[in-house]
Amino acid sequence: MTHSFYPPQRTLMGPGPSDVSARVLGALARPTIGHLDPKFLQLMDEIKVLLQFAFQTQNALTLPISAPGSAGMEACFVNLVAPGDKVIVCQNGVFGGRMKENVERCGGTAVLVEDPWGEPVSVHKVEAAFDAHPDTAMLAFVHAETSTGVRSDVAALCALATHRGALSIVDAVTSLGGIEVSVDKWGVDAMYSGTQKCLSCVPGMSPITFSERAVERINRRQHKVQSWFLDMQLVMGYWGGASKRAYHHTAPINNLYALHEALVMLEEEGLDAAQARHLHNHRALVAGLEAMGLTMAVAPQFRLPQLNSVLIPQGVDDAALRTALLDEFDLEIGAGLGALAGKTWRIGLMGCASCERNVAYCLTALEAILQRQGAAIMTGRALNAARAVFNAQ
Amino acid sequence: MTHSFYPPQRTLMGPGPSDVSARVLGALARPTIGHLDPKFLQLMDEIKVLLQFAFQTQNALTLPISAPGSAGMEACFVNLVAPGDKVIVCQNGVFGGRMKENVERCGGTAVLVEDPWGEPVSVHKVEAAFDAHPDTAMLAFVHAETSTGVRSDVAALCALATHRGALSIVDAVTSLGGIEVSVDKWGVDAMYSGTQKCLSCVPGMSPITFSERAVERINRRQHKVQSWFLDMQLVMGYWGGASKRAYHHTAPINNLYALHEALVMLEEEGLDAAQARHLHNHRALVAGLEAMGLTMAVAPQFRLPQLNSVLIPQGVDDAALRTALLDEFDLEIGAGLGALAGKTWRIGLMGCASCERNVAYCLTALEAILQRQGAAIMTGRALNAARAVFNAQ
Repeated sequence: MTHSFYPPQRTLMGPGPSDVSARVLGALARPTIGHLDPKFLQLMDEIKVLLQFAFQTQNALTLPISAPGSAGMEACFVNLVAPGDKVIVCQNGVFGGRMKENVERCGGTAVLVEDPWGEPVSVHKVEAAFDAHPDTAMLAFVHAETSTGVRSDVAALCALATHRGALSIVDAVTSLGGIEVSVDKWGVDAMYSGTQKCLSCVPGMSPITFSERAVERINRRQHKVQSWFLDMQLVMGYWGGASKRAYHHTAPINNLYALHEALVMLEEEGLDAAQARHLHNHRALVAGLEAMGLTMAVAPQFRLPQLNSVLIPQGVDDAALRTALLDEFDLEIGAGLGALAGKTWRIGLMGCASCERNVAYCLTALEAILQRQGAAIMTGRALNAARAVFNAQ
Repeated sequence: MTHSFYPPQRTLMGPGPSDVSARVLGALARPTIGHLDPKFLQLMDEIKVLLQFAFQTQNALTLPISAPGSAGMEACFVNLVAPGDKVIVCQNGVFGGRMKENVERCGGTAVLVEDPWGEPVSVHKVEAAFDAHPDTAMLAFVHAETSTGVRSDVAALCALATHRGALSIVDAVTSLGGIEVSVDKWGVDAMYSGTQKCLSCVPGMSPITFSERAVERINRRQHKVQSWFLDMQLVMGYWGGASKRAYHHTAPINNLYALHEALVMLEEEGLDAAQARHLHNHRALVAGLEAMGLTMAVAPQFRLPQLNSVLIPQGVDDAALRTALLDEFDLEIGAGLGALAGKTWRIGLMGCASCERNVAYCLTALEAILQRQGAAIMTGRALNAARAVFNAQ
């Protein structure tokens, strides 16, 4: 006989999932109701409005896809890219490569614009790519690269796309709720996110928003969308409002309770306050890490406050350190991904996990293990360096 | 400001979701851990073994897709159907039509075998379709049609497919956990289910299993699978075991806690006992409905015990009755779907919702509202008729 599973209580400071608050977990466990229940329709309507708030948009087509962020990414590409379309895809980390895969599986052609891992997307290179490929239909890039901890300039890139007559597809999986995301102000045409990062909700859903221009493109399609599950015309019919609601799939009811609660919490705190909190805790963490003698992997102006890439000091056993953090401190931090595997750690301060307690806890635990491994760090300074940032608040 | 959402406590006797037990809701709300956490890998391994038990299979490729049943359906088709493939699709309700859509969006050709809604798939018609299309690569059909409450003969249909050198794709969304599902004994090649029916878990995941023959076909593909998210070679890499585990997407951690708990409960009860319970409560419900003078929509030998289609008596206001059940009794039953809209109700007795209390509650509530609407029913008999079945146990 298999036994029930009781997970340990971790502190989640990796690249996501982040700590989920008791309030959101409580919402998750409320009694399941039917997905055609009038009360559930009311919940869906509220979630759409809350997501418009989070994305800072008036886009009517704003809703959560009933699957993780990678399905949200795919929803953007399968609905917007038709066979033969040319898409400029910016790659400065893992997730740009995934976008290229998506374009090609839709029968499109990807024009790659590559930047080094750890640097933002170069607007100049994208401009040159548009010059070389004036028939480009779309520009796709990642706002906050989860693999490197780098922020790119959405406003400049979307303005460029619009100026060149192209639509923009933006990955905001790690940015939404942690740093500014202004879909309407920036002129984003399609954006997808995840629930398990700065929204601090459980993983499994992907908030998504499409501009009117994007919806027009979907409505003008000549070919059926290759995915039935992600066909936005069908998904729209399901989320479209009580009067014209058509059954498509069974929504993940309880997950949506949790997402609603997480968004209510974001509304209560306010977007500006949430962003200021992420920035503040980031500065304290960096002060502490640098006081220890560690080096950040990303230049200050491009750093994501919610995902901090740190260079692993020479002679440190990466895997052994992360295992010790997990086993002794119940603390998860992230390994480097792809080209950065073994070279960086990724310390998340996302959503609920972005708090003074976690900054202090992580610095303390990290220092203890590094010291034990004999790493050349300065001990006894980190916590007060972080404290100084907190007190300067 | 938006307020937190507190759903009513419903009794869920529609076509799904079904009532979720407090035990499963409790598991759902356990603290979130990382999807690369060693404890989570252990959970994934246990879930695979528990799903093999539920499906009655030794198939190595048995896991839950991180999205609802309609994505599980799509996972079967996008991985197995290549452009130009011919697929016999059996349609005797809503979900066969959805299979046809899937085949066509994969570039395949669907050969439709149609049976009236409310009747099972005709093995003879399928045989004739194979005769007319000897180059058929696959046979796809629904085991338990959720739109009509009808069971088809998986053993006979899969034997026929195998004999004709075709693979079989079977929809078990509503059957798994409620009636016999014997993947290996029946020679099924690909089967998908949902979590929110007879497993009585929250909606949002799709258990799936592929035979060795099906995996060989996937491994021999010449074209990339059109969906990145549902590409089983990538999904397999993620679920494949600790040593060779490759990041694909972030699993819906908390949902998987709940699925694990629901499967542990199924293992504790035993498959035979769970099926006997579904049958027993079904018989009691039918006895009660017939004592009231109502007529079942499906012939006895094809009825699903977990989904009971009842003809709506003449002169009854379908929508008003269901609204009254919901508003006055917090009781959800299902409307007819597609061709049966306005003609039938669908009363679910799925998973946890298949219990004596629910049978009695539904009969009582239904009788009260029908009586008030002036329907020509016999009152005061239903509960004792159901009771007689319970007592004969």
